[in-house]
Amino acid sequence: MLAVTILGNNSALPMHDRHPTSQVVTNGEKLFLVDCGEGTQMQMNRYKIRRSRINHIFISHLHGDHYFGLPGLLNTLSLTNRTEPIHLFAPPPLQDILQLQMNAGESHFNFPLHFHPLDQNGLLLDDPKLTVSCFQVTHRIPCWGFLFREKQKPRKVDPEKAYAAGVPEAFFPALKEGNDYITPDGVAIPNAALTKPSPEGASYAYCADTRYNESLIDIVKDSSLMYHEATYLDEHREKASIRFHSTAKQAATLAQKSNVKRLIIGHFSSKYELLEGFRDEAKAVFPNVELCREGVTYLAQ
Amino acid sequence: MLAVTILGNNSALPMHDRHPTSQVVTNGEKLFLVDCGEGTQMQMNRYKIRRSRINHIFISHLHGDHYFGLPGLLNTLSLTNRTEPIHLFAPPPLQDILQLQMNAGESHFNFPLHFHPLDQNGLLLDDPKLTVSCFQVTHRIPCWGFLFREKQKPRKVDPEKAYAAGVPEAFFPALKEGNDYITPDGVAIPNAALTKPSPEGASYAYCADTRYNESLIDIVKDSSLMYHEATYLDEHREKASIRFHSTAKQAATLAQKSNVKRLIIGHFSSKYELLEGFRDEAKAVFPNVELCREGVTYLAQ
Repeated sequence: MLAVTILGNNSALPMHDRHPTSQVVTNGEKLFLVDCGEGTQMQMNRYKIRRSRINHIFISHLHGDHYFGLPGLLNTLSLTNRTEPIHLFAPPPLQDILQLQMNAGESHFNFPLHFHPLDQNGLLLDDPKLTVSCFQVTHRIPCWGFLFREKQKPRKVDPEKAYAAGVPEAFFPALKEGNDYITPDGVAIPNAALTKPSPEGASYAYCADTRYNESLIDIVKDSSLMYHEATYLDEHREKASIRFHSTAKQAATLAQKSNVKRLIIGHFSSKYELLEGFRDEAKAVFPNVELCREGVTYLAQ
Repeated sequence: MLAVTILGNNSALPMHDRHPTSQVVTNGEKLFLVDCGEGTQMQMNRYKIRRSRINHIFISHLHGDHYFGLPGLLNTLSLTNRTEPIHLFAPPPLQDILQLQMNAGESHFNFPLHFHPLDQNGLLLDDPKLTVSCFQVTHRIPCWGFLFREKQKPRKVDPEKAYAAGVPEAFFPALKEGNDYITPDGVAIPNAALTKPSPEGASYAYCADTRYNESLIDIVKDSSLMYHEATYLDEHREKASIRFHSTAKQAATLAQKSNVKRLIIGHFSSKYELLEGFRDEAKAVFPNVELCREGVTYLAQ
């Protein structure tokens, strides 16, 4: 199971007690940070996110509302005696920015910071339990979405078939590991005849700041949960396009065409103090949609 | 009258609902920002500070807890259609950091940003109502304190002497402008005999991150209000010295030796959740001391 906790749901600047973009993706004991607008570390304090559990940070693009909180967070990790490495996946210029800041402060991090520049669509991370890959979206500057995909668990014992074939329970762990069963008479029963596939792993697609783009459909298709930015309402679709952003209706349309199970939308423009219009507009196209609310966790399953 | 509103009173990182350093100095309609830790713009929202009134920003040094909120604030000023210039006084490397961030975002500010590198003690700003000068303090990297000094107002009419000399009230404005009075008989009465000096202007000394340093005494002497960092208590005076910081006792000692009227202390280490110890330790040396509390305004008069 994957879960996504929203730390910031506003675009461009903090307003209406909403914060710039940041999300924490949880998979078991592991936390993955996606974007890190100013104040992310304060939001982590507020919502009791254990920052020590974060080993991987993904930055979609280098507009300030998606990364101005990163230097402070890294600083804090270092000051609180972190020693395990941090893997940072981000557009290449961020490396020089961080280096210049460290030089100016004559500082260093107490942990290894491994910088992984984003430069093409593909796999970023192959963890025992999940993979993370990136895909370019359509923004004014290079900008990346991220796809978290849980690995499918090994096949499970099919008890009905196993009992019928006379497999003793003591052999079930060996079945789970993929072995065939050899009967006392020396007949091999293939593993596939005694087990069944586990359900597919959950997946979470994070579609960062982007103009509406149907070429994303093939990438995010069938996701358990998709985040898509929705900076504006349909009444401002021209402004959205000019500024390389999307409307709530467009986010919902992409969700519908991609056959995702559930949609969350965020990155709301500060011009909207109330957000109900976003929900209503999106729901008319794709019913299983929710507004990103800060501090709330959404499940991908 | 000068007033100082505290936006952040913690050192190094945000904790115990305390924020990294930032202060707003108010003089009439004008606001001056001193340091800008992460979250300063959110603190401004919280305490209803009108950011549009800020024309001058002073950054003491380039440790992140004193400037990581600046890029976001400048961004927000630009996005909210500011067109008047901002004057930024800061250590030289900040200019390159901001430039690199702007390049990475392919962004620009909608207002002129005038960068004034801090490189020697002296006058930074000569405004109609006040001057601001800087002085180097003793920190691990170059670090500057700032001295705000209201200009003395023009001499005031001394009504008793003016009436006794037969000066008509209609001439009082001319007296205020410094003119002598010529009697109907043609006798000149010198302006100084008919007016009295206005009270001296208030002054505010901001002693940024610094080891205890008595060479500051001559600079901050007789200030109406002094801020001095007090990262540690006396029990950790060795750690304070090694890390180029001060204790509450040292801050109070400097206040006492400098004959300032009032002292405020801040930049508290996160190791202290409760702050009463700072007040008690400082009060024993210098009674007119207060702890910096976020959202509270302290008068210099």
